Amino acid sequence: MTVKNAFYAQSGGVTSVINASACGVIEAARQHPDKIGKVYAGHNGIIGALREELIDTSLESDTDIAALKHTPGGAFGSCRYKLKDIKTQKAEYERLIEVFKAHNIGYFFYNGGGDSSDTAFKVSQISETLGYPITCIGIPKTVDNDLPITDCCPGFGSVAKYIATSIREASLDIISMCESSTKVFVMEVMGRHAGWIAAAGGLAQHEGQPAPQIILFPEVPFDRDKFLKRVDKVVKRDGYCSIVVSEGAQYEDGRFLADAGVTDAFGHTQLGGVAPFIANMIKSELGYKYHWAVADYLQRSARHISSQTDLEQAYAVGKAAVELAVQGKNALMPVIVRDQDSPYLWSIGEAPLSQIANVEKKMPLNFISEDGFGITEEARRYLAPLIEGESYPPYKNGVPDYVKLKNQLVEKKLSTSFSI
Amino acid sequence: MTVKNAFYAQSGGVTSVINASACGVIEAARQHPDKIGKVYAGHNGIIGALREELIDTSLESDTDIAALKHTPGGAFGSCRYKLKDIKTQKAEYERLIEVFKAHNIGYFFYNGGGDSSDTAFKVSQISETLGYPITCIGIPKTVDNDLPITDCCPGFGSVAKYIATSIREASLDIISMCESSTKVFVMEVMGRHAGWIAAAGGLAQHEGQPAPQIILFPEVPFDRDKFLKRVDKVVKRDGYCSIVVSEGAQYEDGRFLADAGVTDAFGHTQLGGVAPFIANMIKSELGYKYHWAVADYLQRSARHISSQTDLEQAYAVGKAAVELAVQGKNALMPVIVRDQDSPYLWSIGEAPLSQIANVEKKMPLNFISEDGFGITEEARRYLAPLIEGESYPPYKNGVPDYVKLKNQLVEKKLSTSFSI
Repeated sequence: MTVKNAFYAQSGGVTSVINASACGVIEAARQHPDKIGKVYAGHNGIIGALREELIDTSLESDTDIAALKHTPGGAFGSCRYKLKDIKTQKAEYERLIEVFKAHNIGYFFYNGGGDSSDTAFKVSQISETLGYPITCIGIPKTVDNDLPITDCCPGFGSVAKYIATSIREASLDIISMCESSTKVFVMEVMGRHAGWIAAAGGLAQHEGQPAPQIILFPEVPFDRDKFLKRVDKVVKRDGYCSIVVSEGAQYEDGRFLADAGVTDAFGHTQLGGVAPFIANMIKSELGYKYHWAVADYLQRSARHISSQTDLEQAYAVGKAAVELAVQGKNALMPVIVRDQDSPYLWSIGEAPLSQIANVEKKMPLNFISEDGFGITEEARRYLAPLIEGESYPPYKNGVPDYVKLKNQLVEKKLSTSFSI
Repeated sequence: MTVKNAFYAQSGGVTSVINASACGVIEAARQHPDKIGKVYAGHNGIIGALREELIDTSLESDTDIAALKHTPGGAFGSCRYKLKDIKTQKAEYERLIEVFKAHNIGYFFYNGGGDSSDTAFKVSQISETLGYPITCIGIPKTVDNDLPITDCCPGFGSVAKYIATSIREASLDIISMCESSTKVFVMEVMGRHAGWIAAAGGLAQHEGQPAPQIILFPEVPFDRDKFLKRVDKVVKRDGYCSIVVSEGAQYEDGRFLADAGVTDAFGHTQLGGVAPFIANMIKSELGYKYHWAVADYLQRSARHISSQTDLEQAYAVGKAAVELAVQGKNALMPVIVRDQDSPYLWSIGEAPLSQIANVEKKMPLNFISEDGFGITEEARRYLAPLIEGESYPPYKNGVPDYVKLKNQLVEKKLSTSFSI
């Protein structure tokens, strides 16, 4: 087998552990110099391949590559860019081949979520359709936890841990204040299409501590009256009410609550912000003093509180991707297999990219309690292991000491440029 | 000296380390059984004293009391309640004396910020004015860092660490995404009257990493044009712009940006939310895609990332309060004295409550850079040591294992009740 170089790219919204997958790829590739030459990382994902902006990771020290395990964000830059269909629009694929040929690239590792699996699958078709041999392996990543087949998606467990921890902490705050001040706390979390992240808030509950007493899922149509009645009941019972709301919370007709008529000073509709919307509704109708928080990027970049389990899985799928490739396998994605709930045991399996691309895994409806405001034991059994373990980054001057790579681009070999 | 019981109460907004001060008080009191009998904690602060709702901390084990050091929120409940003036309205003070007498209370420890120092000072006047002998010691606490004399306020350092860490992490996220997606990230932080917390965001900056490139302080009148020009310049230079905005950011005329005309679906003015306001302004005027976060209670309850320095100081002022009391001192507050910047050395001093009550410490203007959008070396020198060190809580099932005390109330001895 001749030695070919590898292309690795990060795609879509980043996570606190996507760089651990990058580390897994690069460290594993360095173990196979007989099969894999250099690992080139796409500068800003697949865009880097199209523009021939390739980062030479061989210039990075082993220490810096290892430090990717404790560094959030996408170390090489990510992108939101989906390749068009290979049948109708060949130009992008021809460009990819041109770049891959110029740099002797024989492996394509693509680290992303649903859209990215689609891209990886399309690139894997180059071999057949355009006659360029390339080994193409997807690497799962998404805080949305919505990839099929894999038991969970690297990135999700850490967000889940952040959300469970944050709502537990904020609830202790409001419990302290509720006698004479704030009675309602609303925390908005990510998850436009599914309630996986919102469900994780339920892990904050434990014996003698019911908060968050209400979780609003995208899966459960928002019923204003029922919701307000529940808030009132909870405040009267517990003295306070702690609420986790998914940014995807919606009415029966599919309109997002976050889009429901809030306008700014200029009369523009204000997008986002379901937490303030809910909080204001409670104040208007029930009169309770409130506080609200929107975690946004903080939740998916919070490497300081990543789940050890999630981190290990993120690293493992990166490493496994390279191992599959050097075994000569193609058009696959390594996936997480749950072997046992408790004690939690997992291993790495594999799945064809064709079965992953464009399939969205929904949260099982039996994860949501009958009243629609909480999670079930099934949900707990699934979620609990994913947030297990802590893996703290090193600190310097009181702040996490995240690595900044050299990210030196390889000299271009093509005279042509490509506009995105 | 006869053995008297002590009353301890938490007051105002809680912090991630106020319970460490409680721990310092209770552990130190347990060292002086010859002088201090039981420590009764006010259930919901001073309200607990007025209502004769006293928590008997002697029923809590040493282990549980020690666990207060790693538990955020106010373990006994806090309150927002300010005693009226003793000259014009004696009833509250007479009630306090009634309760103190009934429970043989000779020490009053009050753990709070500016308003609380005022309350503590007023209670200290009971001795003279109403002839009831009581030793009264304040214990500093406030994330706002606005108490005079003390070099810093326990609670602030941990928020500062949370903010610096969070904006560093979120900035790595946006750096990864900015080529093809989000270009502006806005994070709203606490600090209605002063920019201490916003300034802490500047600690995220380090060599080769300019984020957050813009900080909006309450001290610097908001200039819309100048701000938008700066955002545009930064995005063009760095590819992205990371912004920390204080909830107290305001126009020249003192109007808060957060109150500036945002209305909800019902036409009510929507309070809070300067981050979405700023983000929408940028989108409307410059067209950049944005994300925004509002940390709210998360920042002040985030015990999972408290500063070790802050934690030690919070414990130390609690312990010192008891030591001052058993030395027969009165109407004082233990304060943090900075002995040296680097390496940071601090010790505990003392200050009269009369000099602390109702005095607000402003952030020095030389902490803000000349352009109004950043912090200076003076600010860094002051802030850096306060976020030093990590002190992680124990975890159970992937979430911090915070203690829940028994909080058993002492049997009431008075037949009268008191309405607040």
